[in-house]
Amino acid sequence: MLDFDPWWVVGFVDGEGCFSVSIHRNAFVRSTGGWQLLPVFHVYQHQRYREVLEQLVEVFGCGRIRAKGPGSRVLTFAVNALADLNDHIVPFFERYPPVVKSNDFAVFAEIVRAMVRKDHLRYECFENLVRLAYTMNFAGKQRSRTIEEILTGSSETARQAPLPIV
Amino acid sequence: MLDFDPWWVVGFVDGEGCFSVSIHRNAFVRSTGGWQLLPVFHVYQHQRYREVLEQLVEVFGCGRIRAKGPGSRVLTFAVNALADLNDHIVPFFERYPPVVKSNDFAVFAEIVRAMVRKDHLRYECFENLVRLAYTMNFAGKQRSRTIEEILTGSSETARQAPLPIV
Repeated sequence: MLDFDPWWVVGFVDGEGCFSVSIHRNAFVRSTGGWQLLPVFHVYQHQRYREVLEQLVEVFGCGRIRAKGPGSRVLTFAVNALADLNDHIVPFFERYPPVVKSNDFAVFAEIVRAMVRKDHLRYECFENLVRLAYTMNFAGKQRSRTIEEILTGSSETARQAPLPIV
Repeated sequence: MLDFDPWWVVGFVDGEGCFSVSIHRNAFVRSTGGWQLLPVFHVYQHQRYREVLEQLVEVFGCGRIRAKGPGSRVLTFAVNALADLNDHIVPFFERYPPVVKSNDFAVFAEIVRAMVRKDHLRYECFENLVRLAYTMNFAGKQRSRTIEEILTGSSETARQAPLPIV
């Protein structure tokens, strides 16, 4: 049984972790033009150190471990349930703030909190959250879609469909 | 000015750091067949977080920052002076032990201490230290030479030349 100091966890996450908000198609979310925000917290590690990731499940009280991809020897500890992010991950890193990933975490926490309040179901707020998400992880350079592809599409749909009252 | 908890440093090094002992040709070291052990402690980081590496210079009281390679945007904080490794790096991680890199550090510290005592200038000890070095970082899979290339060559030379009295 490993025993981690919380600051060790922060340092390790600053090296091997990632706060990200991906944006996926979901035709059922009409108010945002069929786009859905999916915040996820990851920590990567080779399978030889699986025990370290298992200990992170204990430390955070949530999360799952799986292979990064088919046949990959790299594992990810991942938390994507909104309640877990809000109740466990965000409070942990508010108490023990990241150094390298401080900006990403601040945006991540803002998006998670907004989603818990269901702000993201109102189009104006969704647009704002998408813009915030695109500032993360080196200004979204790794994203497959431009921000215009997301917002133009959603804007049109949003104009066609009445906004839900949340 | 960043202010790092020592355990943050350990966590970050467990993610982004490396304890390694490379083995280079040096024709002047006759007692070991012209091979030289070079222990080095590295921490890697993108140049956008140069400030973090600069803070490590403060934390450890030694080390230099440079590009990982020509034109690279990745920087390394590196400590390779034996006195700095012995006086600063090894004591720090003995006080705050690494988790993921615990085995590598234990071997690294043993080699550094032996070199400070100049044990490595005796062939029998040099051979032992090379074998130890080859257990590091996933059993030396990244090394360009086999252990036999190092030890066979040095053994022949060592038999030809008298061992120095250290």
